[in-house]
Amino acid sequence: MLLKRRDRFLSAWEPIRDELVQHMEQQQLPKDACNWYRNNLDYNVIGGKLNRGMSVIDSAEILLGRSLTNAEYGKAAVLGWCIELFQAFCLVSDDVMDKCHVRRTQPCWYRLPHVRLIAVNDACMLRSAISHLLKKHFRRDTMLMCLNSFTTYVSFNTDMGQLVDLITASEDTINLSKFSLERHRKIVVYKTAYYSFYLPVALAMRLTGILDSDPGTAIRPYQVALSILIPLGEYFQVQDDWLDYAGTVEEIGKVGTDIIDNKCSWCVNTALSLANPEQRAILDANYGGKRRGQEWRVKKVFEEVGIAEEYAKYEDNAFRRITGLIEIIPEVTKVGELKREVFVTFLQKIHKRLM
Amino acid sequence: MLLKRRDRFLSAWEPIRDELVQHMEQQQLPKDACNWYRNNLDYNVIGGKLNRGMSVIDSAEILLGRSLTNAEYGKAAVLGWCIELFQAFCLVSDDVMDKCHVRRTQPCWYRLPHVRLIAVNDACMLRSAISHLLKKHFRRDTMLMCLNSFTTYVSFNTDMGQLVDLITASEDTINLSKFSLERHRKIVVYKTAYYSFYLPVALAMRLTGILDSDPGTAIRPYQVALSILIPLGEYFQVQDDWLDYAGTVEEIGKVGTDIIDNKCSWCVNTALSLANPEQRAILDANYGGKRRGQEWRVKKVFEEVGIAEEYAKYEDNAFRRITGLIEIIPEVTKVGELKREVFVTFLQKIHKRLM
Repeated sequence: MLLKRRDRFLSAWEPIRDELVQHMEQQQLPKDACNWYRNNLDYNVIGGKLNRGMSVIDSAEILLGRSLTNAEYGKAAVLGWCIELFQAFCLVSDDVMDKCHVRRTQPCWYRLPHVRLIAVNDACMLRSAISHLLKKHFRRDTMLMCLNSFTTYVSFNTDMGQLVDLITASEDTINLSKFSLERHRKIVVYKTAYYSFYLPVALAMRLTGILDSDPGTAIRPYQVALSILIPLGEYFQVQDDWLDYAGTVEEIGKVGTDIIDNKCSWCVNTALSLANPEQRAILDANYGGKRRGQEWRVKKVFEEVGIAEEYAKYEDNAFRRITGLIEIIPEVTKVGELKREVFVTFLQKIHKRLM
Repeated sequence: MLLKRRDRFLSAWEPIRDELVQHMEQQQLPKDACNWYRNNLDYNVIGGKLNRGMSVIDSAEILLGRSLTNAEYGKAAVLGWCIELFQAFCLVSDDVMDKCHVRRTQPCWYRLPHVRLIAVNDACMLRSAISHLLKKHFRRDTMLMCLNSFTTYVSFNTDMGQLVDLITASEDTINLSKFSLERHRKIVVYKTAYYSFYLPVALAMRLTGILDSDPGTAIRPYQVALSILIPLGEYFQVQDDWLDYAGTVEEIGKVGTDIIDNKCSWCVNTALSLANPEQRAILDANYGGKRRGQEWRVKKVFEEVGIAEEYAKYEDNAFRRITGLIEIIPEVTKVGELKREVFVTFLQKIHKRLM
């Protein structure tokens, strides 16, 4: 069942990719450039978990209270793939900036010898595809306006989050005095939560006909969605940070590298907030360091300050807080109104997850 | 008079920049990130000739047949600065990809020691500002839709042109067999003409109320504008390529480097189309070369094939062809209709220019 769901979403990719490549071909751009774009799309958009994209489909089905028709599925899939295109844009350009080596078990796109810094433009072409697809598939003015508005608003927020991250945690100059839990929160909300959590639901809401100021109700549905999904996205990312430190290879499918990569993670920020002067000195001297034993010394401080208990508290608190926010939505709603289940599904997927 | 025109346009920049920085501040993003964005905006948007941005104002005044009111000027200036923001995005990211050193007499943004590859994200933040400004300043749905549609369409075309350029003329692997006048035409049209020539006029047309399918006339005004401005942009770029080769430092304010930089310029493509086998061998062996004498040998082949006469022919032909296209527009038009003068002004600025 889960596999089928993914397969169906994947099967919507090929026509979308072909449409984008054909757009170039129709303008008689050189064959090698069209092929390049096709390779860029296939190499960078496919290969992830596709959770963001499939959330659009799931949310739309919950909101309508039924399966989507083929036509509806097609529209929802375009929106889902737009988010995956945005995700691909983020990964391709982040990998250039962070000088990463491997992404989704293959070399990062910019690492390919014929690509290198052309990846910077390739990332832009992944992002440009979004407004092109929206225009082609959603010609009705008010719908298109709104979808465009969501994607550009969220993209700008993501850029801002990426900026804060880049100037806070640079690999070259390690300086923990810039770190704080408040700054960490801004980074994860802006860099991840908007596009990974709010955007899929907002697009699904608009697709299924939820308008911003429904005269019949006092609640503003997009505001409500935002108020739940941003904390949810924050919780997800804190969990991600936690698993990078505490998860085993079997659990998370990789060896965590946040400590040696000087990442502005929830763990180090929490440890900094709890450390005594000696522990702080150890963190300052070893965080982000690549020498033997440095990572181990950092992990020892994490243990000493009781980070596992802090995480358990955080998780418990986040779960209760988000559950409370969801309960603001009326229990019984009509078609075309926001439903608790959209958020409950998300929360269930995330709570106590390992991967 | 000319100075005043530029000063007035420049004076509209500060409130626009402040509005963008305030957008970050209002979301309580860290002070250093807000300052970073302000520096990015000031360093990269200001300092050029501002021709693209000011073309929006000029075109709007011609179309209305009068000076703009202050309110109209404000709107037109926002559109003008959106194009300058796009231009800044292009320059910042192109400089990263081309490994340039100097831009507008100062070090390229990415060359600053604290910036480096953060420039990739900074470029995106310049581009993201465009849709944000459009949304804030043009709330009327149909207007906003149309302005958004123009900018995203043109941005995607520019990305495509940049891709063709990047895979045709790489500094690392020099291979003239990829070059051709046809490919050169695609590059200049997509990489430059759309955003530098079509976009300012299209935005001014929409601002002054010209709609796409005016029921009263048989001509489709945006199609007509495109059909004139794309060849005009091509002519402009060919001229730029020519001046890089033939202009003196006094004339063009710099030493041309297209030959040693392996640029896919009109000059080399024309020379390739005219060269005999011996001349071709000289071009193959020396174009893009940085050793002493290599540039001189290329220039000698350019002379031998009679490139100056070719350019004179091209210029004459382009001027006559574009004049003919302009004459398709009726000589006498009403307010709210396309006017010849918009294009005549552009053509006059470009024809026989030196800088």
